Amino acid sequence: MAEPQLPEKMRAVVIKDEFQIEVQTVPVPTIQEDTDAIIKVFRAGLCGSDLHFYRGHQPKPYNFIIGHEAIGEVVRCGSAMSKFKIGDKVIAAFSTSCGDCFYCKQGHTSRCAKGLVFGGPKISGAQAAYLKVPLADTTCFHVPDGIPLDVMTLMADVLPTSWMVAANARRLAYEYRDEQDKKGGVCVVIGCGPVGLCAITCALTMFEKVFATDLSPQRLKMASTHGATALPMEQLEAEVLKATENRGADAVLEVVGVPAALQSAVKLIRPFGIVSSCGLHTHTVDLPGATLYGKNVRFQFGRCSVNTYFEPALKVLQDNIELFSKFVENTVSVEEAPKYYDLFHKGEVGKTAFSFDHDN
Amino acid sequence: MAEPQLPEKMRAVVIKDEFQIEVQTVPVPTIQEDTDAIIKVFRAGLCGSDLHFYRGHQPKPYNFIIGHEAIGEVVRCGSAMSKFKIGDKVIAAFSTSCGDCFYCKQGHTSRCAKGLVFGGPKISGAQAAYLKVPLADTTCFHVPDGIPLDVMTLMADVLPTSWMVAANARRLAYEYRDEQDKKGGVCVVIGCGPVGLCAITCALTMFEKVFATDLSPQRLKMASTHGATALPMEQLEAEVLKATENRGADAVLEVVGVPAALQSAVKLIRPFGIVSSCGLHTHTVDLPGATLYGKNVRFQFGRCSVNTYFEPALKVLQDNIELFSKFVENTVSVEEAPKYYDLFHKGEVGKTAFSFDHDN
Repeated sequence: MAEPQLPEKMRAVVIKDEFQIEVQTVPVPTIQEDTDAIIKVFRAGLCGSDLHFYRGHQPKPYNFIIGHEAIGEVVRCGSAMSKFKIGDKVIAAFSTSCGDCFYCKQGHTSRCAKGLVFGGPKISGAQAAYLKVPLADTTCFHVPDGIPLDVMTLMADVLPTSWMVAANARRLAYEYRDEQDKKGGVCVVIGCGPVGLCAITCALTMFEKVFATDLSPQRLKMASTHGATALPMEQLEAEVLKATENRGADAVLEVVGVPAALQSAVKLIRPFGIVSSCGLHTHTVDLPGATLYGKNVRFQFGRCSVNTYFEPALKVLQDNIELFSKFVENTVSVEEAPKYYDLFHKGEVGKTAFSFDHDN
Repeated sequence: MAEPQLPEKMRAVVIKDEFQIEVQTVPVPTIQEDTDAIIKVFRAGLCGSDLHFYRGHQPKPYNFIIGHEAIGEVVRCGSAMSKFKIGDKVIAAFSTSCGDCFYCKQGHTSRCAKGLVFGGPKISGAQAAYLKVPLADTTCFHVPDGIPLDVMTLMADVLPTSWMVAANARRLAYEYRDEQDKKGGVCVVIGCGPVGLCAITCALTMFEKVFATDLSPQRLKMASTHGATALPMEQLEAEVLKATENRGADAVLEVVGVPAALQSAVKLIRPFGIVSSCGLHTHTVDLPGATLYGKNVRFQFGRCSVNTYFEPALKVLQDNIELFSKFVENTVSVEEAPKYYDLFHKGEVGKTAFSFDHDN
């Protein structure tokens, strides 16, 4: 396919400072390295971790295009690219990876030696009409047929992250037993935002029973829709103990990124249980040393290696397409970004995607 | 063998309060449950974790026989015992286990549903001329020929714990790679007391390079003898980075049980590295949330399941018998316990074992 004409300018969501989101007209990016691609963005997701910037919890100054969930079409290819061609529908992982370094070779693409997360001071973000994707061959994935665009945005971060946080828990919880493939055990998901809800769906493929908790009654209701036994924290511990012969949860998935959530996880876990955390922690975490020792607690923290978990996460999406079709609550014009950042921050809207007007 | 006559009274080390150790004359224990054994103690080790009581870091009141490292001879068997008979030379794991509960079946004997650690308010300790061992069939091990008694005391806690802390690190550091049996990677041991020194020896069978650090220059010297590259903390980070192409350590073994040691571990670890901790933590631990997320840190905390690690730890002991023969620095009469608790607390003596006068 011939290279399409590109405009010189585009609309993009720029974070100026905490609580300051502006939609600006900026230059369309161009290929800089032979491994770069430019994609025309159809949908860009608004993610809970964007709120860490919005709420001022990340190092300043800000003044960059934000966002890390983009789905679109390849419009420019660097000369070293071989996996994608112009016209391909692609989704980019939320962080770039080279596929060839110490970390990538182990499947830990989220800590690629050259890797960067879209939407920060170092590489421009996905909430823009066009996105430059560095290391495109190993950062992009083909978009399969039959999945609506809005739903597919979940595959940039939310669903692979959710799969990872559940799969880490499941693997570590059973590493000593010959039951890796058998569904079993009791899991608790702390936090029922988008990642938490997806984590419930993923965990239900691995654990026999999944509890979930959140401060918001509305989110608890959503958690029930996803199949969890959803309870406010004050009722949770007793029910978990009841379900586990008083042992505590085999696994706790902490998807919030605040110290209190981790502390609750440590409280709910059984001895030799696993606390699997994908929450973006930014504060000091105080943990009770005597309990860490006393329960032989295990933790796995951190960012998802999308390349490692893309395939099983996509299967969860395809197997639950009806559930996830209702999942992206709002698809709105990028011009409404300031309003939706505010609503999302206040917990008044759920998962949101931005669309772009590519005819103007 | 016929049941030998037992005295009615014995000498035992009683902890009365912090920094208050008394050697008292107390009744010899008797069989209470049909799974109990009574062993005549030949040697009882003084362990770093005894100091948690001594220093007042454990819940009070105290007033019990302390100690959890005993080697001796079976002198009474409960009627339900089948694995041991009177006259057998045995060593007891530092905590009891049933072999049959949820945890024991997974090899997590340190969190046995019926398990207790010797030398606490619930079961009398090992620093006594006679010891009652509950659940004796699954808590005791036969003593192999050819290992001196003093050295064998290491098998109650120190060496299995050291093997565990290293093996957990090795297993988790390589779980994604097909290199489980290949020696490789860079490991750091924080703390060079008895467990730290043994952990160095264990880690050297698994990792390509082992660094070690401690506040005490004398302990650093010992760490060198065990084969580590021993450095004070202020030189360590730069050398670890040099040895790992600037990544950081693949694994850090934290054997101290103080928050600063864990904080150093988190600082030294590479992304997706594993912090393996056997330190008995008693305080709140403040950890930097951004680093936990930013490095995808993994932790395994807690107490050793001796039954699971006894065999490989014994092999390390047998393979390094000369090194370990010098390891127990002092074997002294139990009557000297108050003095040696004080010296051990001040770091003025190394691993110490108590002997008992069974002729009186």
